[in-house]
Amino acid sequence: MSIETIETPAILIDEAVARRNLVKYQAYCDEHGLALRPHIKTHKLPHFAKMQMAAGAVGITCQKLSEAEAMADAGLDDILITYNILGPAKLARLRRLAERVPRLAVTADNAVTIEGLARAFADADNALAVLIECNTGANRCGVATPGEALELAQTVSNSPGLAFRGLMTYPPVGGTVAVDKFMTGAKELLSQAGLACATISSGGSPDMWRADSAGGVTEYRIGTYIYNDRSLVERGACTWEDCALSVLTTVVSTPAPGRAIIDAGSKTLTSDLLGLTGFGHVLGHDDVSIVTLNEEHGTLEWDGGARFEIGETIRIVPNHVCVVSNMVDHVWVRGEDGDLEQYAVAARGGIT
Amino acid sequence: MSIETIETPAILIDEAVARRNLVKYQAYCDEHGLALRPHIKTHKLPHFAKMQMAAGAVGITCQKLSEAEAMADAGLDDILITYNILGPAKLARLRRLAERVPRLAVTADNAVTIEGLARAFADADNALAVLIECNTGANRCGVATPGEALELAQTVSNSPGLAFRGLMTYPPVGGTVAVDKFMTGAKELLSQAGLACATISSGGSPDMWRADSAGGVTEYRIGTYIYNDRSLVERGACTWEDCALSVLTTVVSTPAPGRAIIDAGSKTLTSDLLGLTGFGHVLGHDDVSIVTLNEEHGTLEWDGGARFEIGETIRIVPNHVCVVSNMVDHVWVRGEDGDLEQYAVAARGGIT
Repeated sequence: MSIETIETPAILIDEAVARRNLVKYQAYCDEHGLALRPHIKTHKLPHFAKMQMAAGAVGITCQKLSEAEAMADAGLDDILITYNILGPAKLARLRRLAERVPRLAVTADNAVTIEGLARAFADADNALAVLIECNTGANRCGVATPGEALELAQTVSNSPGLAFRGLMTYPPVGGTVAVDKFMTGAKELLSQAGLACATISSGGSPDMWRADSAGGVTEYRIGTYIYNDRSLVERGACTWEDCALSVLTTVVSTPAPGRAIIDAGSKTLTSDLLGLTGFGHVLGHDDVSIVTLNEEHGTLEWDGGARFEIGETIRIVPNHVCVVSNMVDHVWVRGEDGDLEQYAVAARGGIT
Repeated sequence: MSIETIETPAILIDEAVARRNLVKYQAYCDEHGLALRPHIKTHKLPHFAKMQMAAGAVGITCQKLSEAEAMADAGLDDILITYNILGPAKLARLRRLAERVPRLAVTADNAVTIEGLARAFADADNALAVLIECNTGANRCGVATPGEALELAQTVSNSPGLAFRGLMTYPPVGGTVAVDKFMTGAKELLSQAGLACATISSGGSPDMWRADSAGGVTEYRIGTYIYNDRSLVERGACTWEDCALSVLTTVVSTPAPGRAIIDAGSKTLTSDLLGLTGFGHVLGHDDVSIVTLNEEHGTLEWDGGARFEIGETIRIVPNHVCVVSNMVDHVWVRGEDGDLEQYAVAARGGIT
């Protein structure tokens, strides 16, 4: 198989670049005394989850049960699901998952979730580890104050079948000061109440090189860093050479000077903008913009005349890799030996 | 199976509403002497493609080979692929598809595409029907002038293995006047050159109720109308009661007054805005906005205090249904008997 014979659109991953990225960030975490717990939502591939573990990660992060189940199927044995798991069906799945994942943990930010977890694990042989999710400014999930974190930690601690593991937050970009403040306050309250807080877990790729600046954090969760993407390049976290994933696409029409149409649209690149203008970066053509996406068409524009040939393939670094991996059943990985191999995206498809 | 036991997020389709939508638009086309060729990219389900055919459609439209292959597998026998098919692998697939689809047609807007088609079908028993794609203002694909359309029509007509079928356009919203002008001019040129133009195919859901106003159009392609979505409600093409597809989602956190978090994020609802503000419409809660999406979280906001219970399920009409169907391997269809049945989304996953 060679790149010329791959049908487009297709996702290409350069394994050497991916490995370099994950090794580099593992070294950063090692240097700063942080446990690294990579988020597999970015790649959804056991192949790379195992590579991250081999490089020194303490475990992996998943965002939903179906991701965790796919990773457990592949033998991953330390999984944190950073989500409120609710409802009888999901709780039953979580309980079954706990029976085959030696180190499984979840997060919770409310009493209803904790009650459900407690009911599901009341008669479990091993307690389920629970981290309390704290809002440090992203205004998504999370308790609003250290006092509320303490209250839920006590509820967990008093629930047979559950074990309080620590605190977790998904901070806003630039939120390390807020994380520090919240966690310092919460740790003090927990300590006064006699509750051990083994883990303080923070995360987020844009601030990856400032992960050490929030004093109380023991663990960092990060996903995008293995592939990188346009949003991280634009925010200065990496360069185009650090981007391991690109979308291979064919120019299917050159209908006017300064415009070309490619066979990658919103069903491949997705409409995620992440605050940027345009839908991706055309490698080797810095002055070309991807101005609109339809489902199966992308429209490129630039100042000037003829540029691309019909049938020519080009490569695009997407705005946001995590959602692009999720669009396809298979990706092409160029191994460190140069060979192309197709991998099934194991954790795609199960949306629950 | 009942709606209460469906794990969320999930896609729910009300078959009675879908049928009503497609029957109503078929009646409109019948009344106005238009052939209806529904675009199956919206649902990707043979079940609904067959229902559209049974209601009177002349055939179906697909946007890529993998969609057409899935529909051919299910027995659909009149398929137009509105795309420039390029490259040896895809041309070989197209040739194989033609051997089992009695009425297969494609579009082309350039000589390179026509050359490839001509090579692939040079020794075919049955000529491949080709429509020339024309740009009537959407500035995606399409030749710019009636003169260029004539030139390509002649190239097709002179290619053994190909048969000129007519003209095709994907107009901009409100573009019926431009369609009329382009097609009237092109028809005259074709007629002077002695080329029969059997089909003039236009399409687009926002202008569906004005499809008759472009004089030369013989066929209308439309996808979204079977399910409808927030974009069409906001543009006045239908009402919330006409929306057959909704996303069933669970409230997983109520972290602050006026804010709730649901388990449908950009990996379910997608980031498609289609010019709207917010990421969907919460049925029964007109004053609630879906202000942000992360991959597995959606953030609802409203003015006021407590509103939703943790664990409560709500239903969301997405901005754009066509991309939402594409996110999942299965959808739940509530049949006209009230029973829920799970359907595999046959044409999802093959991105080429």
